[in-house]
This record gives sequence, structure tokens and C-alpha cells, in this order.
Amino acid sequence: MALRFASLVKKLRPVQVTGISRYSSFKASNLEIELTKNPKEIPNADDLVFGQNFSDHMLEIDWTESEGWTRPKISEIRNFSMHPATKVLHYAIELFEGMKAYRGYDNVIRLFRPDKNMERMKTTALRSNLPDFDGEELIECIKKLIAIDSDWVPKPNPSSCSQSSTLYIRPTMIGTDPHLGVSKSTSAKLFVIAGPVGPYYKTGFKPISLLADPQFVRATIGGTGGYKMGCNYAPTIYIQNLANKKHNCQQVLWLYGKDEQMTEVGTMNIFMMWTNEKGVRELVTPPLSQGIILPGVTRLSLLELAKQWGEFNVSERIITMKDLVNGLKDNRVEEVFGAGTACIVSPVDRVLYQNKWLEVPTMEVENPTYGRLLKNLTDIQFGKAKSPWMIEVPEISDRTKLHASQ
Amino acid sequence: MALRFASLVKKLRPVQVTGISRYSSFKASNLEIELTKNPKEIPNADDLVFGQNFSDHMLEIDWTESEGWTRPKISEIRNFSMHPATKVLHYAIELFEGMKAYRGYDNVIRLFRPDKNMERMKTTALRSNLPDFDGEELIECIKKLIAIDSDWVPKPNPSSCSQSSTLYIRPTMIGTDPHLGVSKSTSAKLFVIAGPVGPYYKTGFKPISLLADPQFVRATIGGTGGYKMGCNYAPTIYIQNLANKKHNCQQVLWLYGKDEQMTEVGTMNIFMMWTNEKGVRELVTPPLSQGIILPGVTRLSLLELAKQWGEFNVSERIITMKDLVNGLKDNRVEEVFGAGTACIVSPVDRVLYQNKWLEVPTMEVENPTYGRLLKNLTDIQFGKAKSPWMIEVPEISDRTKLHASQ
Repeated sequence: MALRFASLVKKLRPVQVTGISRYSSFKASNLEIELTKNPKEIPNADDLVFGQNFSDHMLEIDWTESEGWTRPKISEIRNFSMHPATKVLHYAIELFEGMKAYRGYDNVIRLFRPDKNMERMKTTALRSNLPDFDGEELIECIKKLIAIDSDWVPKPNPSSCSQSSTLYIRPTMIGTDPHLGVSKSTSAKLFVIAGPVGPYYKTGFKPISLLADPQFVRATIGGTGGYKMGCNYAPTIYIQNLANKKHNCQQVLWLYGKDEQMTEVGTMNIFMMWTNEKGVRELVTPPLSQGIILPGVTRLSLLELAKQWGEFNVSERIITMKDLVNGLKDNRVEEVFGAGTACIVSPVDRVLYQNKWLEVPTMEVENPTYGRLLKNLTDIQFGKAKSPWMIEVPEISDRTKLHASQ
Repeated sequence: MALRFASLVKKLRPVQVTGISRYSSFKASNLEIELTKNPKEIPNADDLVFGQNFSDHMLEIDWTESEGWTRPKISEIRNFSMHPATKVLHYAIELFEGMKAYRGYDNVIRLFRPDKNMERMKTTALRSNLPDFDGEELIECIKKLIAIDSDWVPKPNPSSCSQSSTLYIRPTMIGTDPHLGVSKSTSAKLFVIAGPVGPYYKTGFKPISLLADPQFVRATIGGTGGYKMGCNYAPTIYIQNLANKKHNCQQVLWLYGKDEQMTEVGTMNIFMMWTNEKGVRELVTPPLSQGIILPGVTRLSLLELAKQWGEFNVSERIITMKDLVNGLKDNRVEEVFGAGTACIVSPVDRVLYQNKWLEVPTMEVENPTYGRLLKNLTDIQFGKAKSPWMIEVPEISDRTKLHASQ
């Protein structure tokens, strides 16, 4: 069914209108830059709270159905002016991406697989009836934004990649049509903001506990769970608070279907390292084919790294609560962990299911797989290991030439 | 399951914080009014397109977790200033209502069951982790807004209630916290805008066609389909366009589950007038108990009116595509129609299902039930029939006293 929808999505790519190609992209070569005259003080890398601080500049590109895209523009981060009837405020016509810029040990700033974020952003735009664009052009604009705000990219922790701060990047697109009515937005704004974020693990790994309750459903086959649309997030906050306050769990493990499939953990994908019912040692994560799971870039990368190692089976297939319960009973489960851009990997030590705690031995494993994956990945991200996944952000040698060169 | 969730919602109503009652309401008696100095030209009632025109003023009330609600304020409609990290733009923390002000044949302006909208708005706010308030107080503020913009409430069509224009009212609440991170918004804005809308049927009834395809799912048990959250709307637009362009259908009939339950029609609830499989003549609409259907105020009112007539059974229970197909085959189906605030009722004459058109005889019925319900309801709304459902909007006799009286 998901595949059928995906093929429909492809078939229904809007036909180009004669004269104006509605979805012809903006170009990075047209970038307009206006530097702030009031740079802010950069917060201390030790005091960073996720999503609270923003760098000096933002990228903005506007679109209308009749005129297409404007020139991309980088200027001081500032408030938008928005009519109260704007579609994003009523019908949630909005999408976003999450990426990071990493300052390597060689002091080079890099992006991690930005092409994968662009791919997902373009697919999500199509599903949201928001305009298409050239992902390569957006990457070039983002590189320029990061280069301009390069002082905001924190230095890596001298002793540990996984305990290093980064610059979080948030590409976003919203429907800006200032008219009521549930219909596609005839105008849109694509913008990118960025802000420094601290390490997820300041003082070593802290395992998390999950609430697994089939009465709460994040996404369904035939819905939008596989796209990074804003609408997937608002409904989860109430349940997340319920998990925290009523059940003393840190995150929600979203289940699906009568067989209680484990799908994902709020803002992370879910992985299990175990010996499966056939006696084969395996790293497993649920598949994307049902369209109910976000296609995470970290998810994809961990799968690819583990396959390169060639030490155990690596599978994308449905895993159920029964698999977990039986696996724990037979001592076949080694580790459960989440994976996402913010935390990279996050070990799970307990799952609350049917009012009972399932104890997962993740933290007792010697040299655990999640830890090895984390090291492998962060060594790449911070430039300790070479990888084609990392895209360099060229420095701007002379800022005074910025305006002139545009 | 839906009931279980509803009871959880009730139990989990936030506890009042000592000192400040976080959810103590704003008061209409504190309303601040600042009239525009530049009233706009009111568009001709014949040229109105839904959602395109807005009256001169808006109502705004802001909330923060630490300070609670501000004084309500009515002032000139104008753009909001919004930080690019504002939660509503990323995670769809937003909800809305749809209501109308009707100018009766006696020239009195009335609201239709505003308490029902307030009830739904408060429940939706709770589900969205947005602040609670006193519905009666918001109704009083809205009445003042309508009274101030009373010139914007169109005159009724001299010959037909159902062909009359109205003032559409859009109460909205958004999460305004300017920080990234999937968590509840620590600040919010409640605002109300209004604009004149033309009659849904300018030139008599036009039946609509529906696409019924189980591969597209609007809402699921355990999700948010029963709340008027913005997140329910964005995902429908792509499918709505697919229905229009690929299948030549005007609306989507959203199906649910393996038994292909008929749930609702985009922005309308669905009704069927038929003789059921037991030979009993019945008006039926799907129940709210699964939490996948919006509890429409028009839906509720049609059910109550039909029950008052006492001419046939009136039921809220699951109806499936099989019921429709078999009922049509046996000539037991008389009418299918949608019901909502915008259209009141909207007859359906064709349903595209499994690549075949099901012909529904709605338009061939003499003195059809949908038409009688429409007349009954609009006679009430436009003051031809007295009803406790209608709430008068008191006129402002002397505008010059408005400022002084506050």
C-alpha cells in the first residue's frame, strides 16, 4: 500500500506550466547576502540547551504559484510578519528537516549526508503540496549560511567526539497563503535557521525508559508517518507528557497494529541487537515499506555501517512486542537503542508494557554495539575517519568581499 | 479505547499551580478595545469567496505559562510578528473552530450554538497541550467583536435562508513559544478573525461526487481525528487534489478499517437516509466513540432535529461501504449527504469505489430529508423559527462610548 502511494506520488508530480516552470528551482548563484550589523554574543558551549539559541543569520527563499521562487537571501535572523489567516497557522501546511554542522578535529566544518535530508525534504514537500526545488542548490545556500556563521559552530570536545557540541540546522517550509480554506497553499516560504547545541551525553551514557502502550498511535498505513511534516509532531506531545508524568518514562515507543509492532521512539528510530528466533545474531530495525516510520538519516547510516562490518545479520523487518518479550525471556536480547540526529544513539534499559517493566540488558553488555556504532559514526562526523558522507563547508577567507562577490 | 483515552484526558487535566492558577481564564469584562481608524470597504455580498475577505477587527488574547492570560483585546486586523523558531511553524501546535454569525430576517445578528464550539475548542486545547479558558468568556468577547464589525454581517437573501450570506468566524489557538524541540508550548495566542462568506448554493443544490478509496486514511483509533487540530488537515490536501484531478471527484469519503467504514467527508460529516438491513427506515451517521470523526455541531443539530420530527429511526453507528453497496443494490438507499458549518448540508449523487461509480439517488427523491433538514436548520439560524440554539449578539448603540465603557 505504501509502495502504491509512493508510485502515485511520483506519477502525480505536477506538470510544468508553459512559460513559467512552476517548480524550477532557486539558484545558489543568485544568493543575496546582507550581514548583520549587530552580531550576538555566542553562548558558552557548556550551557547549551537544544533549540534555545540561534546564530546571527538565516536563509529565506519565498515562492508563489504565479512567480515561482525568489532569489535566496541570507540576512539577520528576525521575526516574520504573518497574516492571522496564513494557512500554516490553521491547517499545519509545514515541514522541516534536522541536520548538523560538525567542526572536525582538523578545524574543518562539515555537513553529514545533506543529500539525504534534501531527498526527504523534497518528498515531504510533494506530499504537503509545497513547491519542489533542487536539493543541491539548497545545500549550497546552507553551506554559505554556515560559513557566514562559522563562529557559531562549536569546537569539538578534545577527548570525545560523542561528547562534542554541534551547530543544529533547521530547514523549514511553510504555507504562507493568507486565506482560509483547506486547499493547497499558493505561496510558501523556505527558511533555514541554525543554533549551537550541546552534546546529548555530557557525562557519559544515560539509558532511557520507554512507554509501550498500543492505545496510542503515532501513524497509520495510508497516513503521513513516513514524511517529516509538522502534523506528525503535535499529537505526540500530550502522550509524551503522559509517559513522563504518569508513567515515569522518558520516551514513547509507538506501537502499531494488532501485532503491536515497535515502530519508532518519538524523535528517534528504534533498533534491537539480538539473536533472533532462528538463532541468528542480528541488528534489526522496522522497515520503511509501510510508510509509518520516518526514514532517518542516522537510521540509514547505522544500517550501512553495521553491514560494512559484516559481523552479524542486519535486517529491516517488522519487530513486535512479542519478539521483545520472548527474546528477553530467552536471554536473546542484547541491546535496544534509539537513533536520531540529536542523540546519534540512545540506549534503552527499560520498557513499560502492560503495566510491567521489561528490563533490557543494554547497559550490561561489554563493548556494546550501540557504543561501537556511535564511535564509528562520530569519528566520521568529526573528521577522525575519512568518509564520502561528509561534505566540507568552505571557509570565507575575506568577509568584506562577501557583498561584492554577490 | 477512545473512551479510555477521553477518561485519561479528564484525569490528566493539569493541576493548578499554587499562587497562579495557570488555567484561570481571561475575562470579557477586561476587554480592551481599539477601533481601527481605517475601516475597509465591505465587499459586495454577491462576490464573496470563502476565506478571502476579513472584517476590520480581530480579537487577541495571549498566554504564558508563568503569567497566564493577558486581557483580551480587540483591535484592527494586522499581521503577527513571529520568530522563525515558533513552535506552531515546526510542530503544528495549533487548533481552530469554525462558526458563523447570521443576520436574521428581523435584522438581529445571532450565533448558532457557540457553546458547542467552545466545548470542542477546550477539549482540543487540552489534547494539544494548549491552555484552557472559560468558554462563556470567549463567547462574550466574540459577541463584542461581531457587534463592532456588525456592518460585515451580510443581509439575508430575501427569498431563501439557505441561499444567504453569513459572517464566518474563525477562533484559533497557536503555540507561540519561539524555541525548537518537540515539547509543549510555554506560550500561546488565542485569536479570532471573521469574514463574510457567500451562500454555498448560489443557484440551487449542486450534488457532489466522492472518492472512496481505503488506501487513504484520515485518522485512526488512538490518534487525533476527533479533535479540531490543524494537524488533521494538511495530510488531506494531497488526497483531495488527487480526488479532483485524477478521479474527477469533488471530495474524499474517508474510509477506515478492514470493514471500510465510511467516516467523514473532508470538512463535513456524512449521513445516509435509507431502509436498513432489518427493513427499518433510518437516518444514520457514524458514531463518535472511536475518536476518528470530528464531532460536528451541524452533525449534532441534524441528529437532534430529526429525532424531534419522530418520523424515522435516527442512529449513530458504524456504516460500511458494504452497507452502501448492498443498500444501493436493493434500492434501500434514498440519500447520502454531508453536513458541516460551511455548506450546512451537501447532497451526494455519486461515489467512486473500486474504480466504479456508485449512483446514489439523492437528487431524485421528492421532498428529500436533506432539504427538509436544511430548511429546518436555516429557518432557525436566520430567525424565522425561534430556538434556544440561537444566541443574540447585542448591538452597540453608540460606538463613541466604546472606548469609555471599557
